[in-house]
Amino acid sequence: MESQPSVSSSDIVVTGDRPTGPLHLGHYAGSLTTRLRLQHLCRQYILIADLQALTDNAGAPARVADHVLEVALDYLAVGIEPGRSTIALQSAIPELAELTILLLNLVTVARLERNPTIRDEIRQRGFARDIPAGFLMYPVSQAADIAGFRATVVPVGADQLPMIEQSNELVRALNRLAEREVLVEARPLLSATQRLPGLDGKSKMSKSLGNVINLTASPEELRDRVKRMYTDPGHLRVEDPGQIEGNTVFAYLDAFDPDAEEVAALKQRYRRGGLADSVVKQRLATLLEALLAPIRARRAELASRRHQVADIVDAGTQVARAAVAQVLGDVREAFKLRREVRGAG
Amino acid sequence: MESQPSVSSSDIVVTGDRPTGPLHLGHYAGSLTTRLRLQHLCRQYILIADLQALTDNAGAPARVADHVLEVALDYLAVGIEPGRSTIALQSAIPELAELTILLLNLVTVARLERNPTIRDEIRQRGFARDIPAGFLMYPVSQAADIAGFRATVVPVGADQLPMIEQSNELVRALNRLAEREVLVEARPLLSATQRLPGLDGKSKMSKSLGNVINLTASPEELRDRVKRMYTDPGHLRVEDPGQIEGNTVFAYLDAFDPDAEEVAALKQRYRRGGLADSVVKQRLATLLEALLAPIRARRAELASRRHQVADIVDAGTQVARAAVAQVLGDVREAFKLRREVRGAG
Repeated sequence: MESQPSVSSSDIVVTGDRPTGPLHLGHYAGSLTTRLRLQHLCRQYILIADLQALTDNAGAPARVADHVLEVALDYLAVGIEPGRSTIALQSAIPELAELTILLLNLVTVARLERNPTIRDEIRQRGFARDIPAGFLMYPVSQAADIAGFRATVVPVGADQLPMIEQSNELVRALNRLAEREVLVEARPLLSATQRLPGLDGKSKMSKSLGNVINLTASPEELRDRVKRMYTDPGHLRVEDPGQIEGNTVFAYLDAFDPDAEEVAALKQRYRRGGLADSVVKQRLATLLEALLAPIRARRAELASRRHQVADIVDAGTQVARAAVAQVLGDVREAFKLRREVRGAG
Repeated sequence: MESQPSVSSSDIVVTGDRPTGPLHLGHYAGSLTTRLRLQHLCRQYILIADLQALTDNAGAPARVADHVLEVALDYLAVGIEPGRSTIALQSAIPELAELTILLLNLVTVARLERNPTIRDEIRQRGFARDIPAGFLMYPVSQAADIAGFRATVVPVGADQLPMIEQSNELVRALNRLAEREVLVEARPLLSATQRLPGLDGKSKMSKSLGNVINLTASPEELRDRVKRMYTDPGHLRVEDPGQIEGNTVFAYLDAFDPDAEEVAALKQRYRRGGLADSVVKQRLATLLEALLAPIRARRAELASRRHQVADIVDAGTQVARAAVAQVLGDVREAFKLRREVRGAG
């Protein structure tokens, strides 16, 4: 699906989500499908990034905690296989905190403030000067997540590219300090899928705006949400010509309809006039239901044995800890740190 | 020695030093004597703050590493007793890193930038906008050091008061989040001793300026350093009146001469004229030699069994880890974090 150099079996992928709500179709199109593919190609760590979620949810930790297992259920329901992907809980890997603290010494405040992703998010969240310190630092925490696993590939949207650059800068700074290649740089794997718009045609999907379709949506919810999707407000009568640009239904068809030729034909008819919104929506509703039905069933089955799902995350976390502990050991060595003074000199 | 409310046996003290060079008489007068007293009154943790030292020495980690054991030797040589004080190595307590990361969510960048101590130090170090992120965050790391031990008392100089205030703010923010008193506020214990000037009369003692007398100074070094101490440049002939203000020799006598009455008499004679610098310096050299001789001997003896000193630090670090781990557990609970997903819901 991507146009970048292909991923090989020696690659290591790190990816993940902030557990602040249920995963939705935007996640599915934007990242989950990529992960499903990558888990067959190379080693993949998927972090449930609860610490990162706390950097802008410190006042609502229960919201974060409540979604940890939900996100794990979503992963397994869509087909992430614990035998192929390591699902791990970020906050249960204390080595990542230590790595972050050490990397903080290798970047200036000014550099963090220049980070375009951070600038955008500060604006979106309306932080202005009241940015939580943890939030300004989170690119460093993210660098620890990436470099801590010696990740070589990080799937991202285009707006996240500065985060990879920031991480690679820290990798180079640490390697200069160590005078050897302790950490490795990662390359971005850009998603080929355009970011899906919100159902209301707003550019940003947002749980709080309710303009998303969760992976857990019931058949009724799904139909209802598709019915209320934003199309072309000027397309009043079936015979009128309609616009494709900004038309959410077509954006979803582009992302989810396996028959690209048929979608192209539909677009042509819609533009010309003579194709009802309801027809296109019916097609979308049918194919989304075909996508979500098995996910929904599998999720219900998994939810009936949540303890086992928890065990999968806990086991993955142990695997992840061991990986990061090794890298942390090397980084501590670069900083001449030792767990014991005995034997140091 | 202090005019503050007295310290009781239920108090917990946290204090420490950045291991960036040998300890000197400034440390002795400013903090070591207080610690010698406090260790008989209550529980005391003394941190060798190597992580904090790295926040402005990231480019020279060997310098930090090389001084860890030296600082421990200095502690033991002056009479810090491992049975009464817990000497611990900051970087070997990973729980402190985790605690710092969590506390970073409870303070804004703007608040950290307003911290007067940090502003002063940024100016002194000439960082301007190129402040390492770790350096801006170090009050939070220091808050973790204090709150992580549930310290109630922190001995400080007046210039460090804002650090205690910052720490207490974080304590209150965490307690608000937890809706109970998870962490406790600490009160400063202000040193009664004025900060000693550098030997050259400069206000700041600095290893790099060489204007200090190390605790390890040999008798010859000591004599030589006292001889070259800054006095009153206008006091050219013995019979001339001399100035006490800014006169380093008298500042040292104030700090180290046990006979305050005699010092007062000497000051009077010096002001009047008729007292030679060499006489006052001779008195100072003699009493400093009496102070340093047993420290020097004890340090030489300890240095011959460095492994045992290392063991003392390592054992203290384990005790400290256990203390911080308990507090970290409570703080993680406030953030609804769990080491294992199993059992969480």
